[in-house]
Amino acid sequence: MIDKHMLNQSADLNLLFHALADPWRRAMVERLSRGPAPVSELARPLPISLPAALQHLGVLQAAGLVRSKKVGRVRTCAIEPQALSEAERWINARRIEWENRLDRLGDYLQTLEPEGDDDGTRD
Amino acid sequence: MIDKHMLNQSADLNLLFHALADPWRRAMVERLSRGPAPVSELARPLPISLPAALQHLGVLQAAGLVRSKKVGRVRTCAIEPQALSEAERWINARRIEWENRLDRLGDYLQTLEPEGDDDGTRD
Repeated sequence: MIDKHMLNQSADLNLLFHALADPWRRAMVERLSRGPAPVSELARPLPISLPAALQHLGVLQAAGLVRSKKVGRVRTCAIEPQALSEAERWINARRIEWENRLDRLGDYLQTLEPEGDDDGTRD
Repeated sequence: MIDKHMLNQSADLNLLFHALADPWRRAMVERLSRGPAPVSELARPLPISLPAALQHLGVLQAAGLVRSKKVGRVRTCAIEPQALSEAERWINARRIEWENRLDRLGDYLQTLEPEGDDDGTRD
């Protein structure tokens, strides 16, 4: 049974993957991966209103993917690479489990072979 | 400006990340990474109804993360590792961009150093 502790741990991943499930938010993360940018520069290439862009930024910040800082009248955003790494780690762990399973399956199939031939060739 | 072609490309990522943004769906993917399982075994550890579990499975299948096959009265599910790899690739590409940026920043800072010392030590 999955308990409350595991749920709390996974709350971050819920927010992270939810934040990445939108093309405008991914576009913002793509831009910020190349360096910090003011909000206006993040919003400009997107065919959405500035208030909508700000709302998407809010989702990215709530997920810990982006931080922002206001200096004078300009709010500048930057990526939080640790958050992306967390999402990457989860996916990576699944791939490793899956690859390990394939390895075990390969080992098992090898035990079923009738002869201990190294290269399997016959002449 | 982001065009329609890019949007079509990103439709898969929308479905993928949305599918991963739920703890029960991630629990199913975690289980299936260790090997195929019948629906009943996937649903059993989760504190949700069987119909709810089937709905979550539907989301995973729509995102291409899971495939299922009915043999007799048992429906067995298996992971589709290519879909997970697609999500991994997107995140990975962001990390590489971010690391490249740090490298460029490091190179630039080095050009600002007053002396051409290789190791920066003084005695």
